[in-house]
Amino acid sequence: MASETQAGQDGAAALPLPPMKWDAWGDPALAKPLPEDVKGLLAAALGVSAVAAAALLAAEDVRLRPSALAAEDVTALAAVVGAAHLSTADADRLPRAGGKSTPDLLRRRSREPQDAPDAVLLPGSEEEIAAVLAVCAERRIAVVPFGGGTSVVGGLDPVRGSFGAVVSLDLRRLDALHALDEVSGEAVLGAGLTGPRAEELLAERGWELGHYPQSFRYATVGGFAATRSSGQDSAGHGRFDEMVRGLRVVTPAGVLDLGRAPASAAGPDLRELFLGSEGVFGVITRVRVRIHPLPAAKVHEAWSFPDFATGAAALRAVEQQGTGPTVIRLSDEAETAVNLAMTEKIGGTQVTGGCLAVTVFEGAKEQAEARHERTRAVMLAAGGTSLGAEPAVGWEHGRFSAPYLRDALLDSGALCETLETATDWANLDRLRTAVTAALQAGLGANGLVLCHISHVYPTGASLYFTVVGAQQGDPIAQWDAAKRAACDAIMANGGTITHHHAVGADHRPWMEQEIGPLGVKILRAVKDAVDPVGILNPGKLIP
Amino acid sequence: MASETQAGQDGAAALPLPPMKWDAWGDPALAKPLPEDVKGLLAAALGVSAVAAAALLAAEDVRLRPSALAAEDVTALAAVVGAAHLSTADADRLPRAGGKSTPDLLRRRSREPQDAPDAVLLPGSEEEIAAVLAVCAERRIAVVPFGGGTSVVGGLDPVRGSFGAVVSLDLRRLDALHALDEVSGEAVLGAGLTGPRAEELLAERGWELGHYPQSFRYATVGGFAATRSSGQDSAGHGRFDEMVRGLRVVTPAGVLDLGRAPASAAGPDLRELFLGSEGVFGVITRVRVRIHPLPAAKVHEAWSFPDFATGAAALRAVEQQGTGPTVIRLSDEAETAVNLAMTEKIGGTQVTGGCLAVTVFEGAKEQAEARHERTRAVMLAAGGTSLGAEPAVGWEHGRFSAPYLRDALLDSGALCETLETATDWANLDRLRTAVTAALQAGLGANGLVLCHISHVYPTGASLYFTVVGAQQGDPIAQWDAAKRAACDAIMANGGTITHHHAVGADHRPWMEQEIGPLGVKILRAVKDAVDPVGILNPGKLIP
Repeated sequence: MASETQAGQDGAAALPLPPMKWDAWGDPALAKPLPEDVKGLLAAALGVSAVAAAALLAAEDVRLRPSALAAEDVTALAAVVGAAHLSTADADRLPRAGGKSTPDLLRRRSREPQDAPDAVLLPGSEEEIAAVLAVCAERRIAVVPFGGGTSVVGGLDPVRGSFGAVVSLDLRRLDALHALDEVSGEAVLGAGLTGPRAEELLAERGWELGHYPQSFRYATVGGFAATRSSGQDSAGHGRFDEMVRGLRVVTPAGVLDLGRAPASAAGPDLRELFLGSEGVFGVITRVRVRIHPLPAAKVHEAWSFPDFATGAAALRAVEQQGTGPTVIRLSDEAETAVNLAMTEKIGGTQVTGGCLAVTVFEGAKEQAEARHERTRAVMLAAGGTSLGAEPAVGWEHGRFSAPYLRDALLDSGALCETLETATDWANLDRLRTAVTAALQAGLGANGLVLCHISHVYPTGASLYFTVVGAQQGDPIAQWDAAKRAACDAIMANGGTITHHHAVGADHRPWMEQEIGPLGVKILRAVKDAVDPVGILNPGKLIP
Repeated sequence: MASETQAGQDGAAALPLPPMKWDAWGDPALAKPLPEDVKGLLAAALGVSAVAAAALLAAEDVRLRPSALAAEDVTALAAVVGAAHLSTADADRLPRAGGKSTPDLLRRRSREPQDAPDAVLLPGSEEEIAAVLAVCAERRIAVVPFGGGTSVVGGLDPVRGSFGAVVSLDLRRLDALHALDEVSGEAVLGAGLTGPRAEELLAERGWELGHYPQSFRYATVGGFAATRSSGQDSAGHGRFDEMVRGLRVVTPAGVLDLGRAPASAAGPDLRELFLGSEGVFGVITRVRVRIHPLPAAKVHEAWSFPDFATGAAALRAVEQQGTGPTVIRLSDEAETAVNLAMTEKIGGTQVTGGCLAVTVFEGAKEQAEARHERTRAVMLAAGGTSLGAEPAVGWEHGRFSAPYLRDALLDSGALCETLETATDWANLDRLRTAVTAALQAGLGANGLVLCHISHVYPTGASLYFTVVGAQQGDPIAQWDAAKRAACDAIMANGGTITHHHAVGADHRPWMEQEIGPLGVKILRAVKDAVDPVGILNPGKLIP
């Protein structure tokens, strides 16, 4: 890395780094190169041609634009958080330069000077965060709150807006389990706790949060709240926003402590303004969440359905009858076939054709088994064929691995990315057809468009799309066009622009369609009330 | 009624009237005078002395302040809704003069000139509502949206704020079932539909909403949404805010159509700003709600617990284990005793001492029975003694009757009122003790303070208090002091100022404690964005 910092530090990292590779997902030790036969398949079926090794960039060769932070700004901020918790070194700035969408990762490969936050701050308390915001408002410095760095919607882009500089506010030091109430089944978690660390602290006392999004290993409690994350166990434990009982938020205009009771009729629910606020309204510092005892038992069963519509009807029956799975998901025909070909072998069971569904049940032994039996009856009645436990255990084993597969695909010259939406059950097929067609058009005839349902509600479900195709020309522009077409199709066909990836910069152009011009006006009014100078995460969420 | 209207109409009602007696709850035909032995008991035990018949006022003797609406305002508003849907007659204004709290009913007995809205409008469409709001903003007329008229928190007080006049916007003509989606289990209901009418329209198609607050027979769908109502079946079907999938709201700044999907990560959930907005941000015109098939089976079982703490622990175990009752509630020792003495006989079962709990299970036969069995096991393990079905059937039979009992008590010279809150399970006993003490101090040693839990959540529960005592001096001032002390006790002991009665005018002084000064600032910012002139329901919700 070639730029110089203005704080007199050298290029070496001065702060603890995010546990993510700068240009890929997660832990490099867990990376999985594609088997040669799969590479051959990609070339033959999709026309993917290998990227020359020379095209891949080493971290040393990345050039960052120099930090734009003035020396007196650095001094003022260091006075708040301590010099040991501030860095303008490239090695600290680069890993906070953005999130982990495919365009993010592709942009990291550029040999042109790359953008990054002008400094990284690690505040240690709410008081320090409040003081940082005050300094930044006074000195006109934008602030991007940073948790696990796993955004796939441009939520962490170092946008300066109308300001001269932008800093990354890494919240990892807010990592305490502040309270655990075993009677009410509640815990107060620091926003900087990662998923695994939060579960570890709770498990020491016999409790579990049960929030397992694909980003689980790296993402943080604050990020879960700020983005309305939804985990793979959402059928049993709900979305993260449903787990939240209370929130503390530091804004430039003061601190909010929201959520006095499990339920209230005391006017609008202001928690719901800060859930999903993506760092634009304030910095979430603590979250009070519902927890439950560590499950004593776990029951798995996988199912095959002849087609997606039959499988979707089965999931709908399960959810509307409330039979109680912890996990329930359904892959379409294409995803079922590709999973068999490309990921870990799914047990010894031979699944040929059709659509794979996975169910998992957790809880006290008797309860998990009873819910399993009730769900079984509905799945059988709806036309499902049991594949036994193994394919479901296999899914669970690999549940956090898909992003590593994307890295391998990108390295192999393929284009791979995901997007998601949700709609009513009655509209599911129309929406899936429209989005699939839009993505297919963007990828070309050889591209693969896979889809699954991973979150169900009494009135509807999510749809999650994965695309794999050959890179054509500029892959960023290629995906941008496909994504734009898919988002337009979502809005034209009754979906929401995002079910659990959040808005960030990437979905912002569709927000006015999502909530209407008056909805946007309301968000702007709230923004002005809590962040009058507008320093917080410019260019995200609010159009 | 003695005032004259300015519209040249006589005093007779020109519009359909709310189906509520002007100075009491509900349908006069359903009123229940107290049995003589109960009157004797009140006199002996509580020192209640009968109100002289002369103290009760006939409707003809009520004097309303004359309508303050200028003739040109009447003309402009009539041009929007049609002359047949506007009235300034006292007989139309009086039944919309306020809600149904005990102070409301006591104030109706005043021989001094009473306040009332200056006109009543019955718009027939969203377009008319938008036009009414435009006329009122231009002519500076306050607007109080009106549903069933059942507010018990002053939410309907005809406050003019900084304006010269106030009109009641009665939404009863928005009474359509706009859509029913049998696949997704959703219906779009007009805001003016009453509870019974909504259920009737749904039942014709085999569906149920399942929202049964005590105000069910009169309150409306729009009111349920605007006040975050919670029904007696909340354990099974959730609070009303949890049933809502989408909302349409007409504001002075435009129309909002919120809720594109069963769940979304597209930023803050703006539905949650309008749920609980109490007519201050806009007029809710349609609500899209989750519905479910009419239950085929219903199972009842009542339980006795030795004391409230044991019973509460049982309810907590049921809810945290998720065994699935549709209704679950627990009366404390005092309420259990008084219910036996004062309401309909509870079946043939003799309940002596202890605390009565009621459970009801609805759904498909096999499911209702299975949930009953699971709940039974938890109740037994937690120290409950089954009382069989009858006391639970008896409770259900009288579930909407309590307000009639209050009328009879007030007519007999007693003071009777309710208030409610909610908190975490771990804090339930502390909060109940504190609120009971505050209410007892306000009523004097002979007053009765009864309490029950009627809404449970995994992390906590509601507490509902009923007071019965002797009127002392000015009963309005007497209750005001007791209520103030109880609200202060709620805030000092970790409760929410209201679990399901809403804020209105009565709880507004505690809102800053509930959501903090910055929370209030946010509400004001939203208000300015959607209602810049501030015509909507002045003096409510936002301090």
